[in-house]
Amino acid sequence: MNTPIIVNESTDKKAKPSADQLGFGKYFTDHMFIMDYDSGLGWHDPRIVPYQPIVLDPAAKVFHYGQTVFEGMKAFVASDGRILLFRPEKNLRRLNFSNHRMSIPQLDEEVALEAIRQLVLLERDWIPAEPGTSLYVRPFVIATQPALGVAPSEQYRFIVILSPVGAYYAEGINPVSIYVEPEFVRAVAGGVGNAKTAGNYAAGLIAQQEASRQGYSQVLWLDGVHRTYIEEVGSMNVFFKVGDTVLTPELNGSILDGVTRDSVIRLLKHWGIAVEQRRISIAELVEAQRNGSLTEAFGTGTAAVISPIGELYWQGEKFSVNEGRTGDLSAKIYDALTGIQRGTEPDPFGWMLELSRA
Amino acid sequence: MNTPIIVNESTDKKAKPSADQLGFGKYFTDHMFIMDYDSGLGWHDPRIVPYQPIVLDPAAKVFHYGQTVFEGMKAFVASDGRILLFRPEKNLRRLNFSNHRMSIPQLDEEVALEAIRQLVLLERDWIPAEPGTSLYVRPFVIATQPALGVAPSEQYRFIVILSPVGAYYAEGINPVSIYVEPEFVRAVAGGVGNAKTAGNYAAGLIAQQEASRQGYSQVLWLDGVHRTYIEEVGSMNVFFKVGDTVLTPELNGSILDGVTRDSVIRLLKHWGIAVEQRRISIAELVEAQRNGSLTEAFGTGTAAVISPIGELYWQGEKFSVNEGRTGDLSAKIYDALTGIQRGTEPDPFGWMLELSRA
Repeated sequence: MNTPIIVNESTDKKAKPSADQLGFGKYFTDHMFIMDYDSGLGWHDPRIVPYQPIVLDPAAKVFHYGQTVFEGMKAFVASDGRILLFRPEKNLRRLNFSNHRMSIPQLDEEVALEAIRQLVLLERDWIPAEPGTSLYVRPFVIATQPALGVAPSEQYRFIVILSPVGAYYAEGINPVSIYVEPEFVRAVAGGVGNAKTAGNYAAGLIAQQEASRQGYSQVLWLDGVHRTYIEEVGSMNVFFKVGDTVLTPELNGSILDGVTRDSVIRLLKHWGIAVEQRRISIAELVEAQRNGSLTEAFGTGTAAVISPIGELYWQGEKFSVNEGRTGDLSAKIYDALTGIQRGTEPDPFGWMLELSRA
Repeated sequence: MNTPIIVNESTDKKAKPSADQLGFGKYFTDHMFIMDYDSGLGWHDPRIVPYQPIVLDPAAKVFHYGQTVFEGMKAFVASDGRILLFRPEKNLRRLNFSNHRMSIPQLDEEVALEAIRQLVLLERDWIPAEPGTSLYVRPFVIATQPALGVAPSEQYRFIVILSPVGAYYAEGINPVSIYVEPEFVRAVAGGVGNAKTAGNYAAGLIAQQEASRQGYSQVLWLDGVHRTYIEEVGSMNVFFKVGDTVLTPELNGSILDGVTRDSVIRLLKHWGIAVEQRRISIAELVEAQRNGSLTEAFGTGTAAVISPIGELYWQGEKFSVNEGRTGDLSAKIYDALTGIQRGTEPDPFGWMLELSRA
């Protein structure tokens, strides 16, 4: 990039939490990256500054019209001290896909990656090393123009914050029970379900709460048109092992093109396991459970990596999967992905970006 | 309410813009209302303070997961000096409907109304008096907890800002041309289309931009399931005069229950004009245009009040409505509503709330 990133180092470092305190997204590091956009000027003033509050006019468009996108990726420290980032190019490509959908100007992906690289290296002492932990990287863009007309903002801010994290779900990779949502819809083709934008997540909270009240950990979303085809589980993509084949919903315009989803598909194919990306109806799934061919089910996402499903609740009936235990394939995928991520396993796909110390 | 609103008056008053400078939502008054929510404590510390920036942790949930709702209503100054608010109870009821959908705690509607009353009275000198102008009231709630787990926030802020406004559209009540959107979808039943939440508005910007590029002012949204039935126009409800009947889409779960929509329906019934709230397909509308029975079309919303439609573009064809002129009924509704709002016409429905100076 042409414009160097100005670094203003913090003189007041925080105490770091221990690994068992981490949870997900509760602690943040000492610095953040910021870059501004003004129409006419473009993106400008990339800088790393002490972690600090965002100060916005109350009329800033992000508060009123939700023009915002985000990403999530993870940095790891290998046992040999290398600092590794998992497939950041794919996240940054998706960030720009989301920007396009939300009428936000494109970012230079190389500049964004360089920002993340410098920020993570500056915060290297914040990367936890315990199994299941990582440094979660959250890039996001918010519309900052103070104006109430419904129109794209003329000002934006691109920000990257870092959070040392443990397991996303308290359950870890223990199987969770899933409520097939009959009323609420996450997204529909032509909408924003395939963009990583804030509104998608707020929209799903009510169903998640209802599922929790009924004793379920997550919601399985059906499509908004037919209320029949499986879309996502919670905020994850979803996979099912039926016979010798692994099924996952196709990228139909309303589900997220998950980085972990793509990685799982490539791993499975690499292992010679058949994967079908297609429409999967809830009825087909229930039938497969009844005839014994549904043997594993799991969600995939950056935060949880693999989240096995042990039970489905649909139309008043409970359907157990693999007797509520984590399946062999689910465990194998989890071990393979986290092994590649931590540098303890070979990386045949070239997924890990090693961040040099310049 | 039990807790009095603390008022911290600004000592540094801004210069007020002239009526011709106003536009929509560009200028803000000297004060704002703020009230905080913490789980366990509930809503607390209602206060009026000088208009000032919002200071939030970069991890605040509003930036990442879009948990936010808003409302829009207008205050007017009558020629006899009375300060009038148009149907605020209905907006506040809808605010709580939206809060429920977005998993945000309910507000005490009386407290919210008292907050708006005191704020508007404090800022009475900001209410413009010229025809077509008003003081726009923007209450909104944002999720403020700094935490990246996808779950309802444990902290919120309820804020009210005020903006003196002129006409929402530069065209005023001159008819606009409308592009029937073939690709993008605003909302679907089971989603959040009937809640006034930020994500709905960001999602529609891309279609609006494409319509503008093709020379159209607004987008007509079709439903997301059949891509056939009319939903809204831009961010307004929509009405069509076909023969002696006025048609408007029914409240189907994916469109907004507009306050102006409701007011128009009640006015029409009061005048003895038949109104049908039902599914309206784009094919039915085009047929009505072809056989001459479609004589008027208009959008309704708080900002624009009535926005006549002079032309529709669908599947490569242009369909003019009333030869591109504002229809008699559209003009009559506009005059009636704005007359009631400004206190120059009787208010048979008791819509105007007079804010005493107490």
